[in-house]
Amino acid sequence: MRMVEIIEKKRDGKALSTEEIDYFVQGYADGNIPDYQASSLLMAIMLRGMSDREIRDLTLAMAHSGEMLDLKDAAPFVVDKHSTGGVGDKVSLVIGPAVAACGLPVGKMSGRGLGFSGGTLDKLESIPGFHCDLSVAEFKQQLREIGFVLAGQSVNLAPADGKLYALRDVTGTVPSLPLIVSSVMSKKIAAGADAIVLDVKTGSGAFMKTVEDAERLAESMVRIGNEVGRKVVALLSDMNQPLGWAVGNSLEVREAIDTLHGAGPQDFLEHCLVVGGEMLALGGQAQDAVQGRALVEQAIESGAAWQKFRQMVIAQGGDVRYLDEPQRFPAAGIVRVSTASVSGYLARVKTDEIGMATVGLGGGRLQKGDPVDHAVGLMLHLKVGEWITAGEPLFTVHANDEARCAEAERRVLAALTFSEAPVEALPLFYKRVI
Amino acid sequence: MRMVEIIEKKRDGKALSTEEIDYFVQGYADGNIPDYQASSLLMAIMLRGMSDREIRDLTLAMAHSGEMLDLKDAAPFVVDKHSTGGVGDKVSLVIGPAVAACGLPVGKMSGRGLGFSGGTLDKLESIPGFHCDLSVAEFKQQLREIGFVLAGQSVNLAPADGKLYALRDVTGTVPSLPLIVSSVMSKKIAAGADAIVLDVKTGSGAFMKTVEDAERLAESMVRIGNEVGRKVVALLSDMNQPLGWAVGNSLEVREAIDTLHGAGPQDFLEHCLVVGGEMLALGGQAQDAVQGRALVEQAIESGAAWQKFRQMVIAQGGDVRYLDEPQRFPAAGIVRVSTASVSGYLARVKTDEIGMATVGLGGGRLQKGDPVDHAVGLMLHLKVGEWITAGEPLFTVHANDEARCAEAERRVLAALTFSEAPVEALPLFYKRVI
Repeated sequence: MRMVEIIEKKRDGKALSTEEIDYFVQGYADGNIPDYQASSLLMAIMLRGMSDREIRDLTLAMAHSGEMLDLKDAAPFVVDKHSTGGVGDKVSLVIGPAVAACGLPVGKMSGRGLGFSGGTLDKLESIPGFHCDLSVAEFKQQLREIGFVLAGQSVNLAPADGKLYALRDVTGTVPSLPLIVSSVMSKKIAAGADAIVLDVKTGSGAFMKTVEDAERLAESMVRIGNEVGRKVVALLSDMNQPLGWAVGNSLEVREAIDTLHGAGPQDFLEHCLVVGGEMLALGGQAQDAVQGRALVEQAIESGAAWQKFRQMVIAQGGDVRYLDEPQRFPAAGIVRVSTASVSGYLARVKTDEIGMATVGLGGGRLQKGDPVDHAVGLMLHLKVGEWITAGEPLFTVHANDEARCAEAERRVLAALTFSEAPVEALPLFYKRVI
Repeated sequence: MRMVEIIEKKRDGKALSTEEIDYFVQGYADGNIPDYQASSLLMAIMLRGMSDREIRDLTLAMAHSGEMLDLKDAAPFVVDKHSTGGVGDKVSLVIGPAVAACGLPVGKMSGRGLGFSGGTLDKLESIPGFHCDLSVAEFKQQLREIGFVLAGQSVNLAPADGKLYALRDVTGTVPSLPLIVSSVMSKKIAAGADAIVLDVKTGSGAFMKTVEDAERLAESMVRIGNEVGRKVVALLSDMNQPLGWAVGNSLEVREAIDTLHGAGPQDFLEHCLVVGGEMLALGGQAQDAVQGRALVEQAIESGAAWQKFRQMVIAQGGDVRYLDEPQRFPAAGIVRVSTASVSGYLARVKTDEIGMATVGLGGGRLQKGDPVDHAVGLMLHLKVGEWITAGEPLFTVHANDEARCAEAERRVLAALTFSEAPVEALPLFYKRVI
């Protein structure tokens, strides 16, 4: 088999065989196929597309390019949850402990933030002492004993995906449905998930800007998941404004803590209840998502979810005093409130710009490996559709540098559009795809 | 400027600005842009296309990526000729000296064979002692003194094209009109051509398989050439069978010698007269191509073209005794005639297969840098449309290895289709594009 012939086939719009896809994925993971041939094929896939069969083959080839995690000895049935990435998305910090408290073990391997989208590991590392680098044995032991782990990718899961993802990032081949689907699903399959709840974000702060694009992505992921024998539910959720109020690492951890105490933002809590409910239904702890939602709500109200979160943080070395007294989190040097200059309804938010403003403050990354300032970030004080009177607080910037603070203020202001006429509130979810 | 944004722009079907194209070409030539980003952009160009303005910008950027040859002090007006590559195409060996003998200096930088397509330099190197590596000073001196040079690319002409061509070869991005046009035209412009005759081959032994594709290519090259102030004529010529009888390096040199003596194949001679006539018309030595054709014919008949060829070979170190007594050329160890097993009209030739059969004998290259056996090759004894009676000689294989000889016989036989019903002869030319 010759790689150039595989490229030519896809370039000419033909379907690649299972063997050709395996040859490419294994060859690229092994280093036998050079980057320049891989990137040429990626662009051809991006512009020519792939059939469901090809996407399934690509997903499985990437999943099998490294270790396949088997968690059966630690948890009988593993339900994973994946968000396609957004701004202010701290959902795992709340539904992880809540669902685990309901008896469904949650062992999740999370990622770090890149570009406008934040990452769960960065948020958790706001807690002094907390570490994410668990061995597989440690991961399983904690999953058995506590039923809840939030860790980094300690094993070599789907290495072909890791390598291809890095290449896509620099070759203009990120927003390709077949490549996104196979990237997400290969990691979930390699991580040993029996069932997966997909939180597919759509809107100005998501990779999929329209509901239609998000729906096509969700349908494809559900189909591929089902074809390889996994139960999958996808929820299309809104990302036309940040989820909750907080954007930024320790600010989001504090908001999650508030939420676990029953004092979080309403939109964020509701989002967690729905996604958690789906997980419990897939895991068999609830008869359906509605009953699951009630169980998650109960776990939060009873304090069981909060206890589970504390256990996990303690097990992973975090200083629990910060959880119990969140005022201990080091505050940013500058905390500046911006007030509305005119009155009006909040009509639109360029949510990716809110994410990038946080990156500009030092709270996120432009490139892999960049350091992150956990203290900085933003608090928005208004949701789309809400009225604000001139002079009232609109948002607060938490910064450690005067120039960056001013730049973030400018950027956030430019990202917000107001209207004199009433504006409808945004829905939390658009659709459920099964 | 960021390369990934340039890739994304072309990926999304937008036109690149002059600055963006310059940034890419210079950055790639300098080694600042990695292969994997270049190949991704090449595939996007291949699938999204380019406007005339973009092709012109790309051509000029590649031409200016290295030295720009100025031959004005050696020849007042330089007419170049370029063939898009075929099988049995030894045209430069005949029209070069013939046109030079008519008073139009010909200083040509040629290439080597790759794949099914042969190269002028390999053919000339069949002559013991002949060398192609002239310095610019030597090139100009010979052009001044003899008026005829056939050399390799001694200077760093359009290095971006050289680098991009090598990358296209391994990334499935060869047959792209904007990339072919800019590759050909950038080299001609950098080589100092004032006018160019393009011999655009079409058919089973050419890169462009259909007349329509060849015409689009020809039109684009003429347009770009005119836009940058060059006179250009393109001839669409047939490559549905080899040109002449001989395919293989020393066999083709001997056929060129025969032709310069007035004893060559009719189709090949006619092809040379037409292309040479166009060159003389562009150079002003003839009023039009018809008069030019007559002048070329006269130069061959008078022996002036032959003398010019001898002068050039002597000047470049070739042992002229081989020209004067072509029987001296070392024959291949095995010369085997294949006869027709049935009677019929020759209906079709898979010409690229004829080229590859020669490569299989050792007479060409699969990869750059492969050694070449100058003695091996094929002689076809029949043209499409001609009748052959069973038992008559069909083709002759010149080989240096028994197994390779048998393989070539098998391959050539499989490349020929016969018909009981009469078949029309193929035209030499399809169209003239100006």
